[in-house]
Amino acid sequence: MKKIINKPEQVVLEMCQGMVKAYPDKLALDPKYRFITRKDPNPRKVSLVSGGGSGHEPAHAGYVGTGMLDAAVCGDVFASPSSTQVYKAILATRSEKGTLLIVKNYTGDCMNFDGAAEMAREDDDVDVESVYVNDDVAVKDSLYTAGRRGVAGTVFVHKIAGAAAELGWDLPAVKAVAEKAVSRVRSIGFALTSCTVPARGVPTFDIGEGDMEYGVGIHGEPGISREALAPADELASRAVAALLADLPFRKGDEVAVLVNGLGGTPLQELFILNNKASDLLAEAGIGIHKTFVGNHMTSLDMAGASITLLQLDGELKGLLDAPADTTAFRQA
Amino acid sequence: MKKIINKPEQVVLEMCQGMVKAYPDKLALDPKYRFITRKDPNPRKVSLVSGGGSGHEPAHAGYVGTGMLDAAVCGDVFASPSSTQVYKAILATRSEKGTLLIVKNYTGDCMNFDGAAEMAREDDDVDVESVYVNDDVAVKDSLYTAGRRGVAGTVFVHKIAGAAAELGWDLPAVKAVAEKAVSRVRSIGFALTSCTVPARGVPTFDIGEGDMEYGVGIHGEPGISREALAPADELASRAVAALLADLPFRKGDEVAVLVNGLGGTPLQELFILNNKASDLLAEAGIGIHKTFVGNHMTSLDMAGASITLLQLDGELKGLLDAPADTTAFRQA
Repeated sequence: MKKIINKPEQVVLEMCQGMVKAYPDKLALDPKYRFITRKDPNPRKVSLVSGGGSGHEPAHAGYVGTGMLDAAVCGDVFASPSSTQVYKAILATRSEKGTLLIVKNYTGDCMNFDGAAEMAREDDDVDVESVYVNDDVAVKDSLYTAGRRGVAGTVFVHKIAGAAAELGWDLPAVKAVAEKAVSRVRSIGFALTSCTVPARGVPTFDIGEGDMEYGVGIHGEPGISREALAPADELASRAVAALLADLPFRKGDEVAVLVNGLGGTPLQELFILNNKASDLLAEAGIGIHKTFVGNHMTSLDMAGASITLLQLDGELKGLLDAPADTTAFRQA
Repeated sequence: MKKIINKPEQVVLEMCQGMVKAYPDKLALDPKYRFITRKDPNPRKVSLVSGGGSGHEPAHAGYVGTGMLDAAVCGDVFASPSSTQVYKAILATRSEKGTLLIVKNYTGDCMNFDGAAEMAREDDDVDVESVYVNDDVAVKDSLYTAGRRGVAGTVFVHKIAGAAAELGWDLPAVKAVAEKAVSRVRSIGFALTSCTVPARGVPTFDIGEGDMEYGVGIHGEPGISREALAPADELASRAVAALLADLPFRKGDEVAVLVNGLGGTPLQELFILNNKASDLLAEAGIGIHKTFVGNHMTSLDMAGASITLLQLDGELKGLLDAPADTTAFRQA
């Protein structure tokens, strides 16, 4: 294992500390419960709390800030944070308008975020609601998941819900628009290499020199098939076709596109993927409102990428375009 | 070789096309001469043109936009763009205030940017000046370079010169402040793995499973020594010590820090590196004005990182903090 770390058991805490030291005017860390909050949370807007296993950086802590999240709870690498961690984050960012939890759909995360919500409701009278992101069209009922997995589309849900909360919407309205985003977002990814979890020290899966895992999950979970690595244009074609067929997206739809790197793939290759993906969308009569290309929801050092489409309407477009100022996502 | 590409010889053009399709309202591409400009260049400010070999994304095209560059010229992977390419980019972003070229100090780049400057001066009467960035403290007179190499510190030079140009400074003033930034910026990096150039198809260098190349260049050029990979804290300590000793930086100095990923390293590890680096700077009595952590000047898929320090004064601080709106770097 080749990593820039000290000890595997210190990875998450030192990452959080290094992040807060990089952005001390924007972020604060609770080192005991390992959640990162805005430096100055606003108690008069709906509070948005997300998180999950670490290893998906910049998700989720990189999206803490104006127009997106209020707190991100950092579990161990690829392991859900505990109910207690999430509970403490809910209390630390408590707001008079209540709290929305944005949870990626994995069994462990759902259980622990739900447990935290219940504690906060019952013991502290916090108004807590949850949405569960399940955008991965590759497989249903995979390793770690009942139903579809939550992957890079979660970033769009952060953005949409975050903008609504910042505008002062109440909890039912923020939850409703977050659920609308969940219902309209679809992703699919593929891996060229495995990732290596620090505590394990060896690759999560073996893969041949000429092969890819098509439909991979962001923890290296198996996808649809193991097969020969295809050229970029073919990868884009298959991914776009799978996404369009699933929702389905139709001619005349307008979308936001996220071409996401899984951690070990150069930006250069993501742009090559986008080159074909954007042509295919145009050919299908689908309008591209906005494109994001980069590492937004990674799987440690995995080489690979995913493509996400979000079907927009006027409301979602306005919220997507609203300003955001986080350490990983900024727009005016 | 595992890459998301079509054919190696199409990598640069398709990358440029995919980038401009992602940001059609911000960027424009000259597909013949492969340079990317702002969609609407401003002919009343000093024009800033940079570029070099591709493979360092988001450098340099990701820094084209308000407050930074006007054009980035894209050579083949790890190969300087031709004089003709640079010349065409100078003409396409011609300004009444003249043009400043920001060149990383590699023999090929210097020759071709200088040749382009001469053509534009003699044939077209463009007022062209150049600055040469040489921030890598690792080695002098390396592969591809006479003198020190230009690496991640170049991004700070883009930012400083870009802010000055946006403020309407004249060419001698923009050049002078860019040279001040060059004189005050220092970097050092290390690699855990090699990169793989698409046209070559095999890793640029072999490296043992437990080893690192300390002092590596951004094209995989040899560094100071091949040795056992050290823990993150030791890597940070050696890098910070090397940088502080070189300028030298002194107690009471104020700096900007860039912890830069070389392409294949997760953001998680960069934050772990920053965790120690920022402590070390504090212990040395050096004030951190601002920290940037991420992939800013990469070496394709190389795992590794570099640390850059820029010694600030009031003028540089103001220019560093000025707004910028590019596809890879945004601040309000």
